[in-house]
Amino acid sequence: MGDDRAGRIAFLGLGAMGRPMAATLLRAGWPVAVFDVRPAEARAELAALGAEGAASPAAAARGAAAAVVMVRDFAQAGAVLLGPDGALDALAPATLVILMSTVAPADARELGARCADRGLRFLDAPVSGGPGAAEGALSVMLGGPDETVAAARPLLETLGDPAKIWHVGRRAGDGQAMKMINQLMAGVNIVATSEALALAARAGLDPRQAFAIVGESAGSSWMFRDRGPRMLDGQFTPARSVLDIFVKDLGIVNDAADDLGLPLFAAAVAHQVFKLGAAAGLGGEDDAGLIRLYQRLAAGEAGEPRG
Amino acid sequence: MGDDRAGRIAFLGLGAMGRPMAATLLRAGWPVAVFDVRPAEARAELAALGAEGAASPAAAARGAAAAVVMVRDFAQAGAVLLGPDGALDALAPATLVILMSTVAPADARELGARCADRGLRFLDAPVSGGPGAAEGALSVMLGGPDETVAAARPLLETLGDPAKIWHVGRRAGDGQAMKMINQLMAGVNIVATSEALALAARAGLDPRQAFAIVGESAGSSWMFRDRGPRMLDGQFTPARSVLDIFVKDLGIVNDAADDLGLPLFAAAVAHQVFKLGAAAGLGGEDDAGLIRLYQRLAAGEAGEPRG
Repeated sequence: MGDDRAGRIAFLGLGAMGRPMAATLLRAGWPVAVFDVRPAEARAELAALGAEGAASPAAAARGAAAAVVMVRDFAQAGAVLLGPDGALDALAPATLVILMSTVAPADARELGARCADRGLRFLDAPVSGGPGAAEGALSVMLGGPDETVAAARPLLETLGDPAKIWHVGRRAGDGQAMKMINQLMAGVNIVATSEALALAARAGLDPRQAFAIVGESAGSSWMFRDRGPRMLDGQFTPARSVLDIFVKDLGIVNDAADDLGLPLFAAAVAHQVFKLGAAAGLGGEDDAGLIRLYQRLAAGEAGEPRG
Repeated sequence: MGDDRAGRIAFLGLGAMGRPMAATLLRAGWPVAVFDVRPAEARAELAALGAEGAASPAAAARGAAAAVVMVRDFAQAGAVLLGPDGALDALAPATLVILMSTVAPADARELGARCADRGLRFLDAPVSGGPGAAEGALSVMLGGPDETVAAARPLLETLGDPAKIWHVGRRAGDGQAMKMINQLMAGVNIVATSEALALAARAGLDPRQAFAIVGESAGSSWMFRDRGPRMLDGQFTPARSVLDIFVKDLGIVNDAADDLGLPLFAAAVAHQVFKLGAAAGLGGEDDAGLIRLYQRLAAGEAGEPRG
């Protein structure tokens, strides 16, 4: 794979993140072969941008200069790489495999080892900043050797903001470890924001005024300012990230902390709260919908101010 | 009390917040009589700025145009207002009593009722933004009638940033309710920041790089950016806010949520974590010292990266 964008990219996974990322590559002139388990809708959209539709991960991978994996979780990554008609056996030696999904650090190490067994180069490269997927403005956290990072950089700089492509460690899994630190903060903050705005309404305050005041005070956070307005407006149509994603990502955080012997409290309870949200049927909605869990759990009318 | 600053202010409580606030009033030309239960050190500093030292709350209150209460908690507020030689019985009818301490909304309502019984005007006015105490740049959340707010405004605009003096409700306790929404977010964020940076070190990442990356990502928060550097530097000399303050403030949050029938999870566990920190002897240190709790609780060497 070179700067000339001659080599084809096998792009595996066309979900809420993968689809706009593949489109970004196509618009920037990369040849891309796409695969997704779901019906052809996403592939049709990308075909209009010049993508080659592939019937299997192996078909997308054959002859590719690099494979990008942007599926939902480790199980799906295993399926597209190692399952029947998986990509790994179809890739030429020394081809780059770039894992951009968020998985556990240990799982990224596992996939890295499987790639190494086959003589492939593996880069652990989870992303953050969903809305930037369509504009090539993601941030990317990289775990892998310097040479692999250098080889992947032209592609990464198409997908990500060059100022936010962070090489955080030389091992597979290091990128995922950094991503999980961000997800710990982000997930806890969505829970705290839900609690704060639900409590404000319940205490008879104007929740919009609470949002304005706390948003300019020491209690503010990126998530408070981003998710708060959607919570106030009751706008829970899935935007970029659904609630179920944090069930997965906080699970990764807490499993890793268990492995490392570090007790976590806020992260552990936040994970349980997202699981409560999923159990209440909110898993497929925008994660700002978590506030509905608190509105429902409270005695009396949902979200009704009490004074 | 008028804009002419003719009336003397009784200022009760010269702790980490009260002392710089009283100094701000004095520098702005307000006549101030100060009282504190502790030895004369703080009073001497303020005397140099022209303060009159008072031997009791009642002595400070006699003839005052307004009384400002900036003690640590409700027990201390009760003592200076209602205890032996308390201020309330020494104030002339219709005098303003401005409670700037953080107490429970219900406790502010209680003090408001005691003031009303005596024909005094009460304003619930907790503050946020500790470092602004010395520069008259606090934010202030007001619960009280419009006329009382108007009467207090010249004094409030000396202590606070005029753009951040928020009138949030007409009842005593409304200011405290808004403050507790901020404290919920702030307290949970200090816990999350401690967990995130402790986990980063434990996972073999460079915690300073984690701070830089998360600080520019969706996991960022005001507390992460403010307390994070002190956690990384191990700088826990009490700055403006000690850990014990959040034991109190998150207790207020959770008690209020109990009264309102709203289950909270992140706020409840954050309260317990601050109590663990206090139990571990960290209560009198800067609240950024909470990270030491995680470093100590983890197996192996405190804060030692593990890879």
